[in-house]
Amino acid sequence: MPNRPTILVTNDDGVFAPGIKFLTSVAKKYGKVIVVAPDKPQSGMGHAITINSTIRIQKTNYHEVDREYACNGTPVDCVKMAVNNLLKARPDLVLSGINHGSNSSINVIYSGTMSAAVEGALEGSPSIGFSLCDYSIEADFTQAKEYIEKIIESALKNKMQKGVCLNVNIPKLKKEDIKGIKVARQAKANWVERFDERKDPYGREYYWLTGEFVNFEPEAKDTDEWALANGYVSVVPIQADMTAYQSLEQLKSLES
Amino acid sequence: MPNRPTILVTNDDGVFAPGIKFLTSVAKKYGKVIVVAPDKPQSGMGHAITINSTIRIQKTNYHEVDREYACNGTPVDCVKMAVNNLLKARPDLVLSGINHGSNSSINVIYSGTMSAAVEGALEGSPSIGFSLCDYSIEADFTQAKEYIEKIIESALKNKMQKGVCLNVNIPKLKKEDIKGIKVARQAKANWVERFDERKDPYGREYYWLTGEFVNFEPEAKDTDEWALANGYVSVVPIQADMTAYQSLEQLKSLES
Repeated sequence: MPNRPTILVTNDDGVFAPGIKFLTSVAKKYGKVIVVAPDKPQSGMGHAITINSTIRIQKTNYHEVDREYACNGTPVDCVKMAVNNLLKARPDLVLSGINHGSNSSINVIYSGTMSAAVEGALEGSPSIGFSLCDYSIEADFTQAKEYIEKIIESALKNKMQKGVCLNVNIPKLKKEDIKGIKVARQAKANWVERFDERKDPYGREYYWLTGEFVNFEPEAKDTDEWALANGYVSVVPIQADMTAYQSLEQLKSLES
Repeated sequence: MPNRPTILVTNDDGVFAPGIKFLTSVAKKYGKVIVVAPDKPQSGMGHAITINSTIRIQKTNYHEVDREYACNGTPVDCVKMAVNNLLKARPDLVLSGINHGSNSSINVIYSGTMSAAVEGALEGSPSIGFSLCDYSIEADFTQAKEYIEKIIESALKNKMQKGVCLNVNIPKLKKEDIKGIKVARQAKANWVERFDERKDPYGREYYWLTGEFVNFEPEAKDTDEWALANGYVSVVPIQADMTAYQSLEQLKSLES
């Protein structure tokens, strides 16, 4: 680890979002910061990449960091562009967020914030995605500052397992009400969706995706949902291997 | 299971792609087919969903099925729209593909085809994503027909584990050269990216994402990459739990 580590900061709410402003201000304490973030909101982009159209980047200077770029691509594009083109080297740390809204449990697969962190880990850097369970544009990111710093310091000091990143979610609580950090697994949960049907001014139907979050195991105490519901900052180690190992044996009959 | 199961067919190459035409023709043998597929190519969309803009659907009739819709959203949007709005019930089977190009190993997280299958499993249906390792628009999908049928029949007969879907990749081989089916785990692999830099007619830079696939464990014989390289159709069970369980213990020090 060099004296001044290189820290890549990205997000999915776009380069102008308050969440990345706060995260960048924290990151500057720890190293040389390069920001490569989407030029517009990219929420819900999951692990999308841009392969059927072109990518553009623009130098910007909103966060007073070493270098900063707005990119027309997805959060994952931003990480790939930073690592393979702008830095031409593995950053010592990749930070994504702070997302305006929860990325706990199943949200991890829809989340651009977390996909950027997963991509950082795939590229070989310790990576952390931060999310605050508050969708408001005026969300207060300061209340969990000491925990964010603790997690960043730990990632810089202790080698994280290769290919593993952290999914950090912060409850919407006052500083004095946050009980601490809980390391947890991803809760089994899902969205029960509803499509809100409307008519445009020309009489044609259109839909908004909406729905309700359902935790399938509210009693389990080792999940991120439990940690958040009980006042803790949740930390879930995340990796890109989606193999359902427990199903391998059952499927073997396909081979005969 | 009803006599005529309801089968949802989707993809990420769009409703007009030859791959979905072939998969739909196979699916019709087994049940009542509803097609809900993107109205344009959505490759590389991963698990993206449309939350910042509206979704539209249009009734179409290219595949002579029970019902068919083109949707302006992502592959995952298509599944959500089908299950929650158009069918208003869980389909008995969700088929996605056949993708024009491989979705083996790490490609699973970038793939719209596979994300549609993962979404189907999350919604509670047995789900299978099919991909042929041939990017050509004139790819021959017929050579693996007997394997595709075998895997569909197995999914309809045997209850698949809840939340688990199948990632099926077919090697680009003649029928007589395919050796059979191998159940495998997702290989550890990644893309080493390069950004191809060009200038537009106005002198401004733009980039194309390109790169080379690297299998980090070419010797391992239990991976999908090995199966494909050795002439087998690979079948990987996939689930949405991305928790890196092996890292939970190591991270516990964060709690103190």
